[in-house]
Amino acid sequence: MSKTLRIGLLGLGVVGGGVVQVLAKEKEKLQKQTGVAISIDKALVRPGEDKSAMAAKYGFTLTTDFDALVEDESLDVIIELIGKVHPAKEFIEAALRHGKHVVTANKDLIAQHGVSLNALAKENKVSLFYEASVAGGIPILRTLTNNYLADEITDVMGIVNGTTNYMLTKMFEEHLSYQAALEKAQALGFAESDPTNDVDGIDAAYKMVILSQFAYGMDVTMDDLEIEGIRSLTELDVYAAKELGYEIKLIGRAKKYDQQIAVSVGPTLVHASHPIASIKNEFNGIFIESSGIHQSMFYGPGAGALPTATSVLSDVVAIAKNKALKLEAPLFNQFSLPTALANDEQQLSRYYLALNVKDYEQLEPIFLKYTIKVERQLKKDAHLFVICEPISKAKLKEFTQKLTNYARIERVMKVIGA
Amino acid sequence: MSKTLRIGLLGLGVVGGGVVQVLAKEKEKLQKQTGVAISIDKALVRPGEDKSAMAAKYGFTLTTDFDALVEDESLDVIIELIGKVHPAKEFIEAALRHGKHVVTANKDLIAQHGVSLNALAKENKVSLFYEASVAGGIPILRTLTNNYLADEITDVMGIVNGTTNYMLTKMFEEHLSYQAALEKAQALGFAESDPTNDVDGIDAAYKMVILSQFAYGMDVTMDDLEIEGIRSLTELDVYAAKELGYEIKLIGRAKKYDQQIAVSVGPTLVHASHPIASIKNEFNGIFIESSGIHQSMFYGPGAGALPTATSVLSDVVAIAKNKALKLEAPLFNQFSLPTALANDEQQLSRYYLALNVKDYEQLEPIFLKYTIKVERQLKKDAHLFVICEPISKAKLKEFTQKLTNYARIERVMKVIGA
Ligand SMILES: NC(=O)c1ccc[n+]([C@@H]2O[C@H](COP(=O)([O-])OP(=O)(O)OC[C@H]3O[C@@H](n4cnc5c(N)ncnc54)[C@H](OP(=O)(O)O)[C@@H]3O)[C@@H](O)[C@H]2O)c1
Ligand SMILES: NC(=O)c1ccc[n+]([C@@H]2O[C@H](COP(=O)([O-])OP(=O)(O)OC[C@H]3O[C@@H](n4cnc5c(N)ncnc54)[C@H](OP(=O)(O)O)[C@@H]3O)[C@@H](O)[C@H]2O)c1
Repeated sequence: MSKTLRIGLLGLGVVGGGVVQVLAKEKEKLQKQTGVAISIDKALVRPGEDKSAMAAKYGFTLTTDFDALVEDESLDVIIELIGKVHPAKEFIEAALRHGKHVVTANKDLIAQHGVSLNALAKENKVSLFYEASVAGGIPILRTLTNNYLADEITDVMGIVNGTTNYMLTKMFEEHLSYQAALEKAQALGFAESDPTNDVDGIDAAYKMVILSQFAYGMDVTMDDLEIEGIRSLTELDVYAAKELGYEIKLIGRAKKYDQQIAVSVGPTLVHASHPIASIKNEFNGIFIESSGIHQSMFYGPGAGALPTATSVLSDVVAIAKNKALKLEAPLFNQFSLPTALANDEQQLSRYYLALNVKDYEQLEPIFLKYTIKVERQLKKDAHLFVICEPISKAKLKEFTQKLTNYARIERVMKVIGA
Repeated sequence: MSKTLRIGLLGLGVVGGGVVQVLAKEKEKLQKQTGVAISIDKALVRPGEDKSAMAAKYGFTLTTDFDALVEDESLDVIIELIGKVHPAKEFIEAALRHGKHVVTANKDLIAQHGVSLNALAKENKVSLFYEASVAGGIPILRTLTNNYLADEITDVMGIVNGTTNYMLTKMFEEHLSYQAALEKAQALGFAESDPTNDVDGIDAAYKMVILSQFAYGMDVTMDDLEIEGIRSLTELDVYAAKELGYEIKLIGRAKKYDQQIAVSVGPTLVHASHPIASIKNEFNGIFIESSGIHQSMFYGPGAGALPTATSVLSDVVAIAKNKALKLEAPLFNQFSLPTALANDEQQLSRYYLALNVKDYEQLEPIFLKYTIKVERQLKKDAHLFVICEPISKAKLKEFTQKLTNYARIERVMKVIGA
């Protein structure tokens, strides 16, 4: 009488192990509530990797042979948790071609090859779900697809990388240097030994590519994004931001100007009173502006074995419910429009400029000439910190080019709030 | 070729008018993305209510005859936005019996009669959706039902009444008295002329009944809740909370102890560092603790024409998608367990006590006798403010009864965070 959804799990690392554990805990509840028994039957490990204790405890078979696994007709779903692009991409493609639903947490892969993988899923009439790929434990993608279709999103601002948010929190609250904050994050396991993807904003950019698809229905590529990391932030930046009433956050942003969007990742001044500023330590948060709901925010853990595994399982539950309803596999993201990118003239923003100034007197006429209105400013030694009223990105470029004759521009950041 | 979902709208007030407006704006997008045209064909108004300009502008028919409307076989969906229990209940029942899907924002009704209405919907194989009934613009119900089934929720803490949150923010930030804060809320249209439902916690309690169903699958009734409002809060309470590092929020709480739950509404000390404390003014937020995701929070507007209308339309979109997929109407909340309420021994909490003390010396032995450990305390004139470590509700009762011999207990509140 009762149906079973059989799973082949690729990878028994941090998240894979979490999936095994969370499913064991919630198994009965899930069967009772969905009418479908969910069972991990097989797991793919590397040759030599010893997971026999886990396999014995939770009752699944281990294999090192992907081809045999994907040809197993009893399996309904493949969960990919090995990470990176290769061979994850080839594995997922093979699974979709074999008519299996796929769940993955792999943002690198989805950001770079999501379009073709989704097409392949559609072609094979199976689902490809990846809730955990953005902001680990926060249920943001399914919420966007289910609850924002009747709305018009105009701005998505995300703290979508926990490592850098942790570091920035420490730099702000404990006055640690960038290097000390990084070492602390590494010691706690928040940052990897090679932190490039996190601190240079690449990981956040992957997530913004995916968020843009769900928020605007538009496919952008990594090349379409302007990406800046936090590597060069100094204690002086922290000092100035604080004095002006702001925090510095690594913000991934996908903003709509008219009918075009611009997607970027970069350190950003966020006013202390803005809800995003309350997202501390390794937590993530996504703040959305829209014409209907107006302002909303989703907050939670961006990573971790259990939160991420729970998100992975929410995708599995969606597949189980569809199976129970005998439903044709729906696309994860059902919102699709032609991609249209905003140009530099369209992109208006307030900016923060940190200047090393030779002569203040000479500076004022240039601000005047370019009609740059200063909202707030702060002087310290030879430094001038300025927050200016909204100007276009084109104008900013022109203005800062001119400025270099009179001051060294030490940093430029966008400004959010108050 | 293209399908149409035809709507009969009951009530053209704040939210009803918003639904008309938001649908007109997003109509094309919705048709393109769902494959179904959504059309408001008829609206029920009161005799004498003149909405002819709106009807002409948006192209629907007005009627004052509910019976004729509900018998119109061309209508697929009834949206109920007249509010209150009667005749909304009878209207919805008739609609369900006539095989029409129903969408409503009516928390009063759903909290009190949701169980029988859901049963009636199931019987008639139609959907009854009410996303907007809790926290207006925050997509919390569908998120709970879609993303938390693989998780185990252990605590739901909600700021689910915007009026009181606005008042408390003003009392804290601008040191307004309760009365002045209420008048300010009324002047801004956040509070009605009779604010009873808001300030006495009734409105929040309705929402907690609904949240409990989605978070725990359990049906509780209003009688199962302990409900306290903010009417008697004084400037001294605000002073003491602040000095101790806390804010006072009206918190609706549904907490799990073992396998039982307790649901309550009451003013609560929330530590300034807790994410809930960052929810200011008329905004709402729901903070969830769970074994998988651990901590998550959903933030947004709790009311307002456009946010609430957008939530209402997200329900309509769900019905449209199901229609496009030729799907049998699913239940909104698919999580169901027998209701089990926690007893006073199970319910552990930290408490804040405000005492008017005759003799400090006499007090200490009683704290010792009942092994009440004081975490923090503050003295001012004859007042002693104490935060104590977790004790059961049963023990609190016994202890406070004893205390009355030595001090006047001016207030008891639960404590959250730090
Ligand atoms: N960790 C998080 O909190 C988190 C949050 C959100 C998303 N994610 C995503 O989830 C995925 C998994 O992350 P993770 O943290 O669980 O990584 P992990 O701990 O490194 O786990 C990956 C596992 O897969 C194994 N593996 C790699 N290639 C394999 C292959 N070809 N065949 C069989 N096994 C193979 C690895 O073995 P070796 O160690 O021998 O390579 C490792 O045991 C990644 O896409 C990641 O971006 C993770
Ligand atoms: N406003 C919000 O922000 C918000 C947020 C969340 C949920 N809600 C819920 O949404 C529902 C509607 O709220 P609302 O703010 O839109 O209320 P509202 O502005 O008072 O609108 C209700 C409308 O329905 C009309 N009406 C009442 N009984 C009727 C009947 N028997 N036949 C025909 N028309 C009738 C009312 O006319 P009269 O004025 O003549 O009575 C009024 O125009 C309520 O359940 C409320 O709790 C509202």
